[in-house]
Amino acid sequence: MEKSLKELAELVGAEVAGDGSVLISGVAGIEAAGAGHISFIANPKYLSKGAATGASAIICSPEVAIAGKPLLKIANPYLAYAKIVSLFHPRPQQSGVIDERAIVGTGVRFGRKVTLYPFVVIGDGCVLEDGVTIYPHCFLGNNVTVGEQTLIYPNVTVRERCIIGKRVIIHPGTVIGSDGFGFAKDGAAYYKIPQVGIVQIDDDVEIGAGNTIDRAAMGRTWLQRGVKTDNLVHIAHNVTVGEDTILVAQVGVSGSTSIGKRVTLAGQVGVVGHITIGDDAIAGAKTGISGNVPARQVVSGYPHMPHRDWLKSSRTIPKLPEMRMTLKKLEDKVARLESILQELKGG
Amino acid sequence: MEKSLKELAELVGAEVAGDGSVLISGVAGIEAAGAGHISFIANPKYLSKGAATGASAIICSPEVAIAGKPLLKIANPYLAYAKIVSLFHPRPQQSGVIDERAIVGTGVRFGRKVTLYPFVVIGDGCVLEDGVTIYPHCFLGNNVTVGEQTLIYPNVTVRERCIIGKRVIIHPGTVIGSDGFGFAKDGAAYYKIPQVGIVQIDDDVEIGAGNTIDRAAMGRTWLQRGVKTDNLVHIAHNVTVGEDTILVAQVGVSGSTSIGKRVTLAGQVGVVGHITIGDDAIAGAKTGISGNVPARQVVSGYPHMPHRDWLKSSRTIPKLPEMRMTLKKLEDKVARLESILQELKGG
Amino acid sequence: MEKSLKELAELVGAEVAGDGSVLISGVAGIEAAGAGHISFIANPKYLSKGAATGASAIICSPEVAIAGKPLLKIANPYLAYAKIVSLFHPRPQQSGVIDERAIVGTGVRFGRKVTLYPFVVIGDGCVLEDGVTIYPHCFLGNNVTVGEQTLIYPNVTVRERCIIGKRVIIHPGTVIGSDGFGFAKDGAAYYKIPQVGIVQIDDDVEIGAGNTIDRAAMGRTWLQRGVKTDNLVHIAHNVTVGEDTILVAQVGVSGSTSIGKRVTLAGQVGVVGHITIGDDAIAGAKTGISGNVPARQVVSGYPHMPHRDWLKSSRTIPKLPEMRMTLKKLEDKVARLESILQELKGG
Repeated sequence: MEKSLKELAELVGAEVAGDGSVLISGVAGIEAAGAGHISFIANPKYLSKGAATGASAIICSPEVAIAGKPLLKIANPYLAYAKIVSLFHPRPQQSGVIDERAIVGTGVRFGRKVTLYPFVVIGDGCVLEDGVTIYPHCFLGNNVTVGEQTLIYPNVTVRERCIIGKRVIIHPGTVIGSDGFGFAKDGAAYYKIPQVGIVQIDDDVEIGAGNTIDRAAMGRTWLQRGVKTDNLVHIAHNVTVGEDTILVAQVGVSGSTSIGKRVTLAGQVGVVGHITIGDDAIAGAKTGISGNVPARQVVSGYPHMPHRDWLKSSRTIPKLPEMRMTLKKLEDKVARLESILQELKGG
Repeated sequence: MEKSLKELAELVGAEVAGDGSVLISGVAGIEAAGAGHISFIANPKYLSKGAATGASAIICSPEVAIAGKPLLKIANPYLAYAKIVSLFHPRPQQSGVIDERAIVGTGVRFGRKVTLYPFVVIGDGCVLEDGVTIYPHCFLGNNVTVGEQTLIYPNVTVRERCIIGKRVIIHPGTVIGSDGFGFAKDGAAYYKIPQVGIVQIDDDVEIGAGNTIDRAAMGRTWLQRGVKTDNLVHIAHNVTVGEDTILVAQVGVSGSTSIGKRVTLAGQVGVVGHITIGDDAIAGAKTGISGNVPARQVVSGYPHMPHRDWLKSSRTIPKLPEMRMTLKKLEDKVARLESILQELKGG
Repeated sequence: MEKSLKELAELVGAEVAGDGSVLISGVAGIEAAGAGHISFIANPKYLSKGAATGASAIICSPEVAIAGKPLLKIANPYLAYAKIVSLFHPRPQQSGVIDERAIVGTGVRFGRKVTLYPFVVIGDGCVLEDGVTIYPHCFLGNNVTVGEQTLIYPNVTVRERCIIGKRVIIHPGTVIGSDGFGFAKDGAAYYKIPQVGIVQIDDDVEIGAGNTIDRAAMGRTWLQRGVKTDNLVHIAHNVTVGEDTILVAQVGVSGSTSIGKRVTLAGQVGVVGHITIGDDAIAGAKTGISGNVPARQVVSGYPHMPHRDWLKSSRTIPKLPEMRMTLKKLEDKVARLESILQELKGG
């Protein structure tokens, strides 16, 4: 496929600076790009690379100028780049066929153009809406619902009764609806509490590879519209994750915690159970969230504190041995001063 | 199914306060509950909810009183709740059938009522005792033993010669018996040390989703009776985990470490190799255990310290910048005092 | 199989001390070993166990002497041990057969003696070189290349176009080539950036169980020759990991970071994106690497600092409450001294 720069500009709502007739056939990184490629500069410090690139055109902010290079200028160049990548790399067409080596239970309802790859197992009473694609070695328990255009990669397990929305993407090896970690003490041993709730995943959620999202003890574990999780994220039973919230890799969220909308938890963050994290809160990498976090607060450290305080404290930590020595010396000096003064007063 | 409150009380060894003839048909959370439900109050601060609930009866401690509501009173209400949930939500009946699309090796011995779902692969010489259930896409290597009533969810891998006890539950996507991480330095590169031991999992163990439990270099990696692991837990080669120990989500245990009985390691704890953690020890979330932990000790922090010390220290950490400034000022003041005193003495 | 101690010594380039004709039929730990076993002492503190062992011979350093026990002396006893374990426990012979219940796409090219187990799915255009073995429930997307003698354990997903080298081992449940975590902000919501690059894994790499290695946004995520990853490791898009680098369990590496050669990242380390870690650097367990690390530097803590500084600081942390109290007392004392001095001067 080839598009003129002018066509691309119209597609994403950008302005052309320079020759709009230049033909673009693909997208590439600023260093790898060659003739026919469009590339992308987000960070002004890479402007020099923009001059040197072999790309035929560059997506950039309105204030950028690069002599002799056709530019596609727009306020959000990253978003324009994403849309142009999508144009040149559309999601592969699926067959719309239910492979005869897939296994489908009784009473399953199919929309149009559902693609089931070989060795998929679909339990009784499932509903698979239009355009659903399920890759090999996935297992859906009984009475699972999957919304239209949802894509489930290989080796995914979705247990019984879970509800998955429209346009959801689930990456390989992920587990949805495993039992929550619930036991009642019975002397020294533990008695398993049946986990009879579900997981509900709303529209436009994307779940990374190797996630584990437990079903509720009762009720639901709930990922709301637009949530994105990175790889190896753990979400315990009865957690709610609000709309457009981002959970970066290896985050773990304990049971019954409620996370607001547009929250970002960076990599390896851990969250204690039964708390509330407000809308638009942000937690830095490795934060241990040990209590409620108000809306819009930025936190770090363990136990978590305002990010600004954490930055200051953590700059102090390497100075601790020196501080301790200074303190020791001061104690001695003050003791000496006290005794001299005692002498003076006495004298 | 319907049971009278009196019948439930007998089942769990509780006392009825109020009308024992009220019929119960299910369990629900205190807010969601309606007529016919029994609900549950563990925490006295939810007592007000007990008065407002639509539930027909409430499980609670002996000292609780809620006017006009039939109560089921017992010392351990959480355990009673768990048992009543189990009564109303029994584990689904399995077919007891070996699906013809499962693959079974040579010399496999089956107990009665073994259920193998489609696309299960069982290696040569395995033993599957009475009532074992194995879900689709599980792989058992050669000579694996699985004890009676054990349940293995989809997409689980158990490699050769591992031994799994009775009434064990293994959640989806978990790996048992992968090679331990063992290499000998060979110049700059690494030479793989064959991992020829096994994993042994004793009775009544429950293993979460997405766990990785490595086989021993030689001998065994050993999870003793009643161990419970949450999701995404990593257990390295030659680790021993004692009876009724709890490993919460994303815990990692390094090689050859020995964990005692009734230990609790909270979420994201990491444990160094070749150490011993005593019985009944507890580690708070994100603890980095860097050496032996005595029995019954509660630890936190990294490197770990007594939890009480950690609590105090971590309250101090946000004050560090202020402490540093105070220290600076004190140094100046003391220097000034010294020089004044010098003058006075000299004068 | 039986080998004389002399034969084993020749095989690994060691010296025999004592009776070289003793026959060895296996390897065992120093305490479990009996007649016919060779065992191994790396740590001088276990010398006493060497005297007490039932083993017929012991692998040890040249300076070790154990009365009456045939010894195999060599500068790197651990490597010799590894090689002798390999001798007695060779990797199991594979059938070299493509099981008829495996599914193979169109245009797949096979080398000699490729073993595909049942329920393997191989996409169109894949290349599987000589001696490749792929266990049940693995999925390879279209146009994946797998080099000779590579071994892929069950339930592994490798997505389209990824390149896997020779003699690679991939442990169960691992995901190669899942989409990188890339989204462009589009108002409050996120727009998915297609991840159109690949993962390239070079020769002699070993990847643990339950890893997630994301494909590049463009270009490649690249694990170079000899890299070893432990279990549950996450590697984000466009990361490069240099030759012979070791990533211990539960490490997470963020996007576009470049890790040098012979680096070691210990368990649960997290690495921020877009940085460089120099050759031969080492990070202690749970380190949060928040910026570039020079070659050969040893770091710990979060934010990371030189390991030596971290050791000193972390020894100080439990003293913080005491330091704070001392500081408080000193402030009072100094205030008192100041007022006395004021009096003296005024008087």
